[in-house]
Amino acid sequence: MHPIITAFESSPDRGQGLARDMRVRWALEEVEQPYDVRLVSFRAMKEPAHRALHPFGQIPTYEEDGLVLFESGAIVLHVAQRHAGLLPEEPDARARAIAWMFAALNTVEQPILELQVAKFQEGDKPWSAERLPLIKDRIRARLGELSVRLGDADWLDGTFSAGDLMMVHTLQRLKPSGMLDDYPDLAAYVARGEARPAYQRAFAAQLAVFTGQRPS
Amino acid sequence: MHPIITAFESSPDRGQGLARDMRVRWALEEVEQPYDVRLVSFRAMKEPAHRALHPFGQIPTYEEDGLVLFESGAIVLHVAQRHAGLLPEEPDARARAIAWMFAALNTVEQPILELQVAKFQEGDKPWSAERLPLIKDRIRARLGELSVRLGDADWLDGTFSAGDLMMVHTLQRLKPSGMLDDYPDLAAYVARGEARPAYQRAFAAQLAVFTGQRPS
Repeated sequence: MHPIITAFESSPDRGQGLARDMRVRWALEEVEQPYDVRLVSFRAMKEPAHRALHPFGQIPTYEEDGLVLFESGAIVLHVAQRHAGLLPEEPDARARAIAWMFAALNTVEQPILELQVAKFQEGDKPWSAERLPLIKDRIRARLGELSVRLGDADWLDGTFSAGDLMMVHTLQRLKPSGMLDDYPDLAAYVARGEARPAYQRAFAAQLAVFTGQRPS
Repeated sequence: MHPIITAFESSPDRGQGLARDMRVRWALEEVEQPYDVRLVSFRAMKEPAHRALHPFGQIPTYEEDGLVLFESGAIVLHVAQRHAGLLPEEPDARARAIAWMFAALNTVEQPILELQVAKFQEGDKPWSAERLPLIKDRIRARLGELSVRLGDADWLDGTFSAGDLMMVHTLQRLKPSGMLDDYPDLAAYVARGEARPAYQRAFAAQLAVFTGQRPS
């Protein structure tokens, strides 16, 4: 039995890889763990059967031998802890890589999600245009700090880790805004992540949900 | 040598326990690990010496035998993995407890931080009053879902865990808004967390920074 994850039956991004199942797919591809996918509709996500797996009615979820997990960060960490390839073996380096996962989700993603909320949930409000620069300033503050820390390195702390996986995917959510263009080093960092064969396989698999064509 | 954490020299909440060092103090108290505290000013937080520890110029940080960590979630998880008392031993239960840590930080805290940003960074904007109900609706959606999942249980998944620690502290940030009053079960959940002796010790220690009196 392979682990089963859930993903949008009809993702808002139409397979651009911005939905959070992408993080889990990518992690599973990095450790070469085959998996199955169950697609859920927006309506089904809010019904009791799915909420039994995910109390907040979202995707992705993860089921494996009776274990049920939700939250992309928790699932990626679980995969990374059970398989080699996404976290350093050395305990201190391992703890630092996990810290970058939390930094991606709780510090860098926070203002990026604010931008998405402003666009999709408050885009029609009278304050929308005037408020946007404030949010973008908060995002730029984080991007500047991240850029300084990354410096000339390929990855945030030594070799590629689950911390980079989460950070790259978090930054990808800025692509529609064009904001990454002002940070060529971060854009190159994201591109390095996207160039990984495991990323490519995961991207093809989630895109195939929309094209109806199985990835080659 | 005890681990050293950093905390605000002058916390915006004046010792009400809402700053993020409280999470780390509480975790260390739960596992009975003594620790030292280095206070940092707002100015020092943004200088290179502190940014070497925390790339985003925030508190808390954690230093122990050459290991440097940032992000309260990562530090609490590190403490919980190195000591007994904050995570179940059984692997599946352990993964689920960690999932609740991520849920607290990435799903429940997201709209709560939006409320704080709206209050402290956009409180003087013309849209402030009209926008507040939208944010509160998003928070209520999360609180309602959390309340359903908690049900009649004392804690989110079996015995008290690092997941509850993070969730209780995340919910505490709503106290100034009074929003928890509409969810008596969640208010009782927070109160259970606050009643723990380890919480009490951590609270007294962070309050002592402001009163200048050592906790008894």
